[in-house]
Amino acid sequence: MTTATLPNVTLTTQANVYFDGKCVSHSFTLADGTKKSVGVVLPATLTFNTGAAEIMECVGGGCEYKLAGSDEWKSSGPGERFSIPANSSFDIRVAEQYHYICHYG
Amino acid sequence: MTTATLPNVTLTTQANVYFDGKCVSHSFTLADGTKKSVGVVLPATLTFNTGAAEIMECVGGGCEYKLAGSDEWKSSGPGERFSIPANSSFDIRVAEQYHYICHYG
Repeated sequence: MTTATLPNVTLTTQANVYFDGKCVSHSFTLADGTKKSVGVVLPATLTFNTGAAEIMECVGGGCEYKLAGSDEWKSSGPGERFSIPANSSFDIRVAEQYHYICHYG
Repeated sequence: MTTATLPNVTLTTQANVYFDGKCVSHSFTLADGTKKSVGVVLPATLTFNTGAAEIMECVGGGCEYKLAGSDEWKSSGPGERFSIPANSSFDIRVAEQYHYICHYG
């Protein structure tokens, strides 16, 4: 079951553009002030660093990811989530599109 | 004065990806059901076709645009808007980034 829509959010209108546009996201906050973002990764292999811990929830397409310290690529598809610790990193590779919600903390 | 945030919207989590990612947007609806989107155009010269009429509101960066039937490129920066008729088209060229809200109708 994927999360298709998110009601009652405050949307930041400027996009976040990473890796020359290979990843584009828009940030938003919930009514309680919790910050999240929705985004898409286009065909690429990228390394993301985390500050806060993150949970990546797939809402369309898919990816393969490899957490720092692991040598195993795992796949993540619609409705699936994976977690990245704070102050860490992960590699992600996308063949077509990976649409996600990023939850922090 | 640019529109930095939009309160109380229902956000569609999947992105819209156009022109191999040269334009990426996320759709949302207002509490009254009005549909809009926020997006970004990356460095490119593109042609967009309209179904419904559109108003493009710049919320960051800038672009040059040329409406169908015109041979004049005009620039649009933060806080500025331009309108495109229904069933028409416009060319847009972006040197860095053009962040926008697309209003329909």
